[in-house]
Amino acid sequence: MAQKPSIPKGTRDFSPSEVNKRNYIFDVVKKHFQTYGFQPIETPSFENSETLMGKYGDEGDRLIFKILNSGDFLNKVNDELYSTKDSSALTSKISEKALRYDLTVPFARYVVMHQNEIDFPFKRYQIQPVWRADRPQKGRFREFFQCDADVVGSDSLLQEVELVQLYDAVFTDLKLDGVTIKLNNRKILAGIAEVIGERDKLIDFTVALDKLDKIGIDGVSKEMREKNISEAAISKAAPLFALKGTNLEQLSVLGNLLKDSEEGSKGVGELRFIIETLEELGLQSANLKIDVTLARGLNYYTGAIFEVAAPEGVSMGSIGGGGRYDDLTGIFGLKDVSGVGISFGLDRIYLVLEELGLFPEAIDQSLQVLCVNFGIKEALTSLKLVNQLRRAGIKCDLYPSSAKMQKQMKYANNRNVPYVVLIGEQELAGNSFVVKDMVKGGQKTYSLDTPELFYKGL
Amino acid sequence: MAQKPSIPKGTRDFSPSEVNKRNYIFDVVKKHFQTYGFQPIETPSFENSETLMGKYGDEGDRLIFKILNSGDFLNKVNDELYSTKDSSALTSKISEKALRYDLTVPFARYVVMHQNEIDFPFKRYQIQPVWRADRPQKGRFREFFQCDADVVGSDSLLQEVELVQLYDAVFTDLKLDGVTIKLNNRKILAGIAEVIGERDKLIDFTVALDKLDKIGIDGVSKEMREKNISEAAISKAAPLFALKGTNLEQLSVLGNLLKDSEEGSKGVGELRFIIETLEELGLQSANLKIDVTLARGLNYYTGAIFEVAAPEGVSMGSIGGGGRYDDLTGIFGLKDVSGVGISFGLDRIYLVLEELGLFPEAIDQSLQVLCVNFGIKEALTSLKLVNQLRRAGIKCDLYPSSAKMQKQMKYANNRNVPYVVLIGEQELAGNSFVVKDMVKGGQKTYSLDTPELFYKGL
Repeated sequence: MAQKPSIPKGTRDFSPSEVNKRNYIFDVVKKHFQTYGFQPIETPSFENSETLMGKYGDEGDRLIFKILNSGDFLNKVNDELYSTKDSSALTSKISEKALRYDLTVPFARYVVMHQNEIDFPFKRYQIQPVWRADRPQKGRFREFFQCDADVVGSDSLLQEVELVQLYDAVFTDLKLDGVTIKLNNRKILAGIAEVIGERDKLIDFTVALDKLDKIGIDGVSKEMREKNISEAAISKAAPLFALKGTNLEQLSVLGNLLKDSEEGSKGVGELRFIIETLEELGLQSANLKIDVTLARGLNYYTGAIFEVAAPEGVSMGSIGGGGRYDDLTGIFGLKDVSGVGISFGLDRIYLVLEELGLFPEAIDQSLQVLCVNFGIKEALTSLKLVNQLRRAGIKCDLYPSSAKMQKQMKYANNRNVPYVVLIGEQELAGNSFVVKDMVKGGQKTYSLDTPELFYKGL
Repeated sequence: MAQKPSIPKGTRDFSPSEVNKRNYIFDVVKKHFQTYGFQPIETPSFENSETLMGKYGDEGDRLIFKILNSGDFLNKVNDELYSTKDSSALTSKISEKALRYDLTVPFARYVVMHQNEIDFPFKRYQIQPVWRADRPQKGRFREFFQCDADVVGSDSLLQEVELVQLYDAVFTDLKLDGVTIKLNNRKILAGIAEVIGERDKLIDFTVALDKLDKIGIDGVSKEMREKNISEAAISKAAPLFALKGTNLEQLSVLGNLLKDSEEGSKGVGELRFIIETLEELGLQSANLKIDVTLARGLNYYTGAIFEVAAPEGVSMGSIGGGGRYDDLTGIFGLKDVSGVGISFGLDRIYLVLEELGLFPEAIDQSLQVLCVNFGIKEALTSLKLVNQLRRAGIKCDLYPSSAKMQKQMKYANNRNVPYVVLIGEQELAGNSFVVKDMVKGGQKTYSLDTPELFYKGL
């Protein structure tokens, strides 16, 4: 009895149209990565477990897919440990490799291992799948692509400026006009916590502030109170709840609020430089917006924090994000390598382009010309024409057998072919071919001696 | 103490130049896949174990990487089984997923699961990594890419013709002139075994014949004797050992030898059709050669068998291969779907192109223009120029900090940058920029108002 096939939950098959659409996004992103001077690297799908474990917190460790050792893997387990039947204790004895959980830790490992071949600042991009044993749900998969660009070895704020421009260039090219690039700085958040006298409650404060959009001023204040942030601190922070006006106006308010915090003032200074430089250089279609509630991975970032929101009216979480981290490679023994990077959320960008109908129409034209097959003699002549079209780069095919005309035309329809070529007995005699226009209707006859009169126009 | 990082044996990091070279090969292959009407699909990296296990023989099963179940995986193992401490018996209880071993079985699964959305004949290509827990050695990796094109749902021999043309198109485009495409047919091998009266020794006979190149006629005869193939059979097969002349001449000898075998005659007829059609259509740079010793995966293929050898003088095993199989999808319950496909050996093609110096030079030009950074005011003007170049699609960068000139020029050298742009105080005053030609030497000054006079030529 044959198996009824299925695939693991949280994974996906991608059919031709989906692969083409995904590649369209990847290709646009890659093109801009390259014009911005980023270079591609690739790392193995699995790493030694010790490279990954302990880098993502306990929850992360649990979500890492572990690969069973090959051969008699129980051989290495002593009887005492074995007798405990303790899954987590046994794991490290029977599994020494694991599928990567993100591209950042492998990148850090790469930089340290290859530090002597790398010219710093090193601008790398990496577009590869990652795996997480997360509970699958709508839009959350166990295998998905990450798409990251990072610069390591430079603490210049010009990198932050460029990364914002890079977002703008990619989304403009994808015709996704009107995305909002939100900017914040970890030092500003730290400065706020400092001046309101709640330095040790930075995380609680930030988590509450982050909900301003959803629960409003009263909700945020209430949550802060619940976290034992003092009334005095909450009123000192009040101006943050009502930041208004242009970016530069907001920066003035912030600068004023944080004037007594060295770190906070530094953050405001950095943000001001980035925004002023970008205003001078100009963006093509993206909006730039200070958002002091933005905290993404607070424990990770040390300077700039970025997030990209889809255009207004599209309900979708962030479609990209990133920031600066001062010590990416320290965990692997290379100190003081500052980095800053951004990532693109492929699956969400895909959904947004789909919703807004922004994929180019030609994506679904996987075949531009189909030659009908009328029998072996006609087919041979057709193949010669097909050859010429293919050498001119046109996606072209001959139907492989002389099936009924109806069947061949149905195949052409199903594959969305815009032109069908007919070479029957009559055409063979006349050294010609007929082209049926499947979109507009009608047909035209060409000489087999000058096929370019047909295909040059495609 | 920081970890000293490493990667699992048999896996590789790919640095920028390597990724670019690999992508060059992939892009050429993909372009031709598409002009030949093939469409891309992608399948998950891991499959349910039952999809893969039992499809590659016992040795294959052992080489499949298994993924440990998440969470308390021992929970599902009853105490009796657990007490045996038997790795292989335990495996299926603690691991339900496995990394794919090739792209063919996942493709068969895909076809069956998606049969109602597919228009047959279905021409698909697939370029994805596969994993094998094989002993790593020179040129053999535990993670490597496969690059396959298959047509399912058509038994027309025109597919075989097209696949040979496709090989020719790809290798011609890669400038790898003079590859040899070897052709055989499983039915010919079966016919030979039949007419020499050793039908049940087909495999032994073929394995021995396959060594003709290496051990000569005497060696092959000796091996056949050792496998108890009769002297009478060996002398009947003798003409095979000395096949000479053109493909069509060899076909005559074969046709004569196999005239009493229905299957063998069918095989000769098929091969004749393929070769005559290809001679009529013409190949661009590949040689076509009948090779009755060619057996590749004999148990798998049912008709045509292909293999591609690198040009003479390059010592490298096959750089591609494939064939026709009559029942790809039967294991998953879809009967009578004939398929034929070929694959490209990426890693070997890479080595051959490297050995022959056939990679385009521009591949290592990951940055075409670098602007030297003389300080913040100059940098801002430089960034405006950089923007214009990038929008014109030129890979361009500003050095991120105003480091010493020597350091910046060294970076430019290390990154192989052909043009360095200088905008210092003097240029700023004169609204101009200087371009140093790093290859030919010399420099030129341009106006910042007409940068296209510089970059249009790139």
